[in-house]
Amino acid sequence: MRDVKFLGFDVFGTVVDWRSGVARELAPFLARHGAGALDAHAVADAWRGQYQPSMERIRSGAREWVRLTVLHRENLETVLRAHGVDPQGVPAPELAELSDAWERLDPWPDSVAGLTRLKTAFPIGALSNANFALMMNLSRFGALPWDIVLGAEATRSYKPQPRTYTGAAEILGLRPDQVALVAAHHSDLAAARACGLRTIFIHRPLERGPDRAADLRAAQNWDMEADSFIGLADAIA
Amino acid sequence: MRDVKFLGFDVFGTVVDWRSGVARELAPFLARHGAGALDAHAVADAWRGQYQPSMERIRSGAREWVRLTVLHRENLETVLRAHGVDPQGVPAPELAELSDAWERLDPWPDSVAGLTRLKTAFPIGALSNANFALMMNLSRFGALPWDIVLGAEATRSYKPQPRTYTGAAEILGLRPDQVALVAAHHSDLAAARACGLRTIFIHRPLERGPDRAADLRAAQNWDMEADSFIGLADAIA
Repeated sequence: MRDVKFLGFDVFGTVVDWRSGVARELAPFLARHGAGALDAHAVADAWRGQYQPSMERIRSGAREWVRLTVLHRENLETVLRAHGVDPQGVPAPELAELSDAWERLDPWPDSVAGLTRLKTAFPIGALSNANFALMMNLSRFGALPWDIVLGAEATRSYKPQPRTYTGAAEILGLRPDQVALVAAHHSDLAAARACGLRTIFIHRPLERGPDRAADLRAAQNWDMEADSFIGLADAIA
Repeated sequence: MRDVKFLGFDVFGTVVDWRSGVARELAPFLARHGAGALDAHAVADAWRGQYQPSMERIRSGAREWVRLTVLHRENLETVLRAHGVDPQGVPAPELAELSDAWERLDPWPDSVAGLTRLKTAFPIGALSNANFALMMNLSRFGALPWDIVLGAEATRSYKPQPRTYTGAAEILGLRPDQVALVAAHHSDLAAARACGLRTIFIHRPLERGPDRAADLRAAQNWDMEADSFIGLADAIA
């Protein structure tokens, strides 16, 4: 880690608790639209379940790059339909507001304090698939103290495409091994490592709810591991 | 101003005092290289004097877009040569360090306090010709609390090209008239207004030193004017 000059953070799941935040907005919406019997957390999981397939069409070249806010909206309509709610029957402003639930996600309890400490020792930035506006609004909601927002829109690519990682280093004028990715997902870290970045795994056992075991696919011996951003700051800041 | 949803800031001259900061680093450099008799402020002015011509080659299409750090470095070599210092005779790390003087510029005395107050009422972002890394490092140096960095690199264009302004609005998902440019330069505001942005003029009478009159070319009746970011915050935050 001695050469690292920048910490780039995955955000959904690593910095913020997307599942609770999305379910919190889905529950009253579903109740208003005759679907109050549904489990809002399960619908949140279904919405998130569309995330990778929707990006994959872009990564594969089948579709031009569009911002994640566009994918979130399309995926929401897909998921509502699958759960018996016709999005055409929902007033447009209400649907738009719900789609922006991804801008109103609580940081994990250690996130802001940990980032604030890490920022004294390293430049810190979002290295997420969120577009600029989504990340700006999410960061204002949760008071995330980024020095910079990079990621998907800065490179018009979606992780785990190499360009999202190598492009961030190039924008910063750094070698890939001078950038560390901090993430709670092994697949993200594996792709970053393949591009030469340093890798820091953060355990977020509650990301997918209390009943879901951690995903160990692609797990490797990462450059560092920590249970929280506070633990990471204790080690390197 | 009622519809404004984002404040974008010009930075060099509007938020930070580039002339004093650059001269502060030039003075000892020139002394070390046998040019201590030169006025460091005059050399700073000459360096800044290369700024518009160097961007103009890109704006006109004569050159591909490159980052401002690249232009700063080329322009420094030009200016040193013009002042009798051969850049080839300067150790590479020392030249690189001097070229990065643009990352170590003091904010005007009201900048951080004013931005911090404005940020409670509006998302705030850098809308500057600086590239991402330059702005990140400058912002860390001066503790500038941006919500987002946009500007030249986000759109691969240089103000006053329309794309720098309209692209920022597009990235934010806003109409141009929902974005206000805050700047100390009439030409910047005039170009932003031509793109439909709102315009806020900040008086920075010392930008070009105590002996230089303000540039009134392109002065118009801007949507707002203020003597400082504190004054602006008093009015709208």
